[in-house]
Amino acid sequence: MANTDSVSVRVFSLNCWGIRYLCKHLPQRYVMIGDMLSKEKHDIVLLQEVWSEKDYLYLRQTLASSHPHSHYFKSGVIGSGLAIFTKFRIHDTFLYRYSLNGYPYMAHHGDWFGGKAVGLAVLNIGGLTAKVYITHLHAEYCRDKDSYLPHRVVQAWELQQFICHTSVGADVVILGGDLNMHPQDLGNRLLWTATGLRDSYSETAEFDGCEDGFTVIPDNLFINKKELIPFNKGIRIDYILFKGSSKADVYCDFMSTTKGSAPGHPYPYSDHEALTVKFRLETHSSTDADGDGRLKNQESSADSVAALVDIVTEARTEVKVGLHCAERMRYTATRTAVMGLALLLLELAIAAVPWLALGAEQAFPRTSFYLLAALCLAILLTTALLYVFYTMELKSLQGAEDQMRLVVGSLQEKLRGFRLVQPQKSQRNPPEGLETRAVDPE
Amino acid sequence: MANTDSVSVRVFSLNCWGIRYLCKHLPQRYVMIGDMLSKEKHDIVLLQEVWSEKDYLYLRQTLASSHPHSHYFKSGVIGSGLAIFTKFRIHDTFLYRYSLNGYPYMAHHGDWFGGKAVGLAVLNIGGLTAKVYITHLHAEYCRDKDSYLPHRVVQAWELQQFICHTSVGADVVILGGDLNMHPQDLGNRLLWTATGLRDSYSETAEFDGCEDGFTVIPDNLFINKKELIPFNKGIRIDYILFKGSSKADVYCDFMSTTKGSAPGHPYPYSDHEALTVKFRLETHSSTDADGDGRLKNQESSADSVAALVDIVTEARTEVKVGLHCAERMRYTATRTAVMGLALLLLELAIAAVPWLALGAEQAFPRTSFYLLAALCLAILLTTALLYVFYTMELKSLQGAEDQMRLVVGSLQEKLRGFRLVQPQKSQRNPPEGLETRAVDPE
Repeated sequence: MANTDSVSVRVFSLNCWGIRYLCKHLPQRYVMIGDMLSKEKHDIVLLQEVWSEKDYLYLRQTLASSHPHSHYFKSGVIGSGLAIFTKFRIHDTFLYRYSLNGYPYMAHHGDWFGGKAVGLAVLNIGGLTAKVYITHLHAEYCRDKDSYLPHRVVQAWELQQFICHTSVGADVVILGGDLNMHPQDLGNRLLWTATGLRDSYSETAEFDGCEDGFTVIPDNLFINKKELIPFNKGIRIDYILFKGSSKADVYCDFMSTTKGSAPGHPYPYSDHEALTVKFRLETHSSTDADGDGRLKNQESSADSVAALVDIVTEARTEVKVGLHCAERMRYTATRTAVMGLALLLLELAIAAVPWLALGAEQAFPRTSFYLLAALCLAILLTTALLYVFYTMELKSLQGAEDQMRLVVGSLQEKLRGFRLVQPQKSQRNPPEGLETRAVDPE
Repeated sequence: MANTDSVSVRVFSLNCWGIRYLCKHLPQRYVMIGDMLSKEKHDIVLLQEVWSEKDYLYLRQTLASSHPHSHYFKSGVIGSGLAIFTKFRIHDTFLYRYSLNGYPYMAHHGDWFGGKAVGLAVLNIGGLTAKVYITHLHAEYCRDKDSYLPHRVVQAWELQQFICHTSVGADVVILGGDLNMHPQDLGNRLLWTATGLRDSYSETAEFDGCEDGFTVIPDNLFINKKELIPFNKGIRIDYILFKGSSKADVYCDFMSTTKGSAPGHPYPYSDHEALTVKFRLETHSSTDADGDGRLKNQESSADSVAALVDIVTEARTEVKVGLHCAERMRYTATRTAVMGLALLLLELAIAAVPWLALGAEQAFPRTSFYLLAALCLAILLTTALLYVFYTMELKSLQGAEDQMRLVVGSLQEKLRGFRLVQPQKSQRNPPEGLETRAVDPE
């Protein structure tokens, strides 16, 4: 066996619920968060919903000595809300903006303006290249009738694509954030199966926190208990996921969550609970990853490829539902535009009559005329904008569906390869493209 | 020395100039392109500006036997215009949409509606994992006063980020497309230095095509000669770039371009010239990449790191110019909105006077009142949209600038590491994060 070096890394994740002037006790909560973080000195801090850059700058100042390196990911109108603070130097960052993220006219939901994205920071932890991802997916406002489900599924799809394609060569991969998905939700299954990322809560040796690892609980002062029904005890939608590599094994030694209150303070840090995970990174020479271990992994990956085919197929169905909705919405916008145009033409025709019959007795109803014309123009403008927006939504959904179809085809070919290889145990090469997917046995 | 296997790969790239009803002889040109491609049977065909999905479907049908695998990258309102046709199975695809891409109100330039992006297709060529990128950057409409320069620089920045982060582990990397940049332009220097991609035209053993590798030339029937001034002989803005890896060397044996006409046809395939490159991929065992070769690369990369620092610093300056412009535009939008609002309030105040003084003799000028009110509302709505748009532009520019600053810091630290290592030739580890940048010596 090879020599092993062990490094301990503490990772913290919190959705800060940080809309200025709207979220309760925000300035006080940022002071609490800043104090706690500078005291606790986690190695990596992943914050979501830091909507105001001023708040990020306040935290950066507060954490200057405990976390000298930080990055704030900017996107959308308001920002992505994503911030990372760390003890390690950040060598590089990269931001991927999700192609779908709600609707601008659903301003009360606000997700569109947030420019949801996944941020990547490249760190060096004790000689290991760590790729640390932070994200926040579209919120779920109504679980029974979730009109944003196709958007969230596409976000999960793009998230796994981004992680699969950018984490190659990384020794350690960590993803933290508010996924707005329950553990067994389609998007989560897709993400976990495709990337091979493991769930800290399921893997931790020791846990201290809310029942079932819940991160939104009724005991939290800021939570409206009615909104949690039928999940009376809470839901788990915030995660810290991880995976190692042939160069380093990652173990989750301890995980904790806050429990609806911040010790010594009148209210909690946020409406979400904070997660803290203690990882142990064990570096070993890469040679012992070959041989038996590799074979074992290759066999098991036939099952995971089959599982991935099922999940991607399920995701395709959901995207098709979204396509159908978007097509209907675009059709409605088109029809409304046509009606607006017809009304405008009719009005112009009516207006033309008195002008043609000069000297008619009856006065021309100018007020109604201009009001109605303004209304027609407003309808035309609005429907034109909606048409452009829905076309973009359709393109993104179609794009995701195309990619999913292609990947399913490639995975099925890989499965056929497995079936040929396994019974014969011949010396054939592994099927094409195995290296290119996340179920990579290395 | 290791054994070497040699594979030959022919890559084709063409900007198809494919706006339906606007671009001349489009249906005929697609027939010409389809016939030529199915006859020439290139291994990989990278097409840009295939704006209509119908045209893509026509080509897919025409090339079904010669190029059974294809993908059309969808984004934006119209689409990205990017299509790939290949003999090899496409195992996976991924699309990165540039965060900046012109302005929606510059409809006559149309770039914004195109949703410019970079597409990635993962292929397996003779046992090698090839990552093939296709892109099309924002056009340059006026070189002397190029208001889109900051956008194009940010696109080049995001393109190199995307390639650096997603090409790790690839055995062969190929990028084809219309970069809309001359060879020595800032964005090109940034892209080439950061990714280590090499230019087929500069590296080819044999070349048959336009002088200096020009891809837009005055001899092309569709080119307005006046627009090329002062580049009377032509410009080179289309490229096929490539790099190998420790597992495979890539050589460019032959390159050709069309010369302003399509043999046997009355007009050219497009307003751009088509590029064809013949690569030779030489696979070798990865062991011989270690040892001396690695050391040599490490030494030379100190120079390339220094060069990259200079180029990224130059790009930061350009992004700052863009930031300044975007801030000014947003300020103008805000000021116009305030004026519109003031006018509306003034009007309401004037209107209130006759209503308050009931029974006044003078008739209320309703027509002017409603017209003016509609104008004010239109101003308010337009400026609100512009404000949102410029805010998003600012966020993207600031984000790129932040990332550039961070990378420059990391590179400078790396340089200090080189300076410490080189004179001493000690047994220190290579500086942190070396693996994470594209100047990776592997």
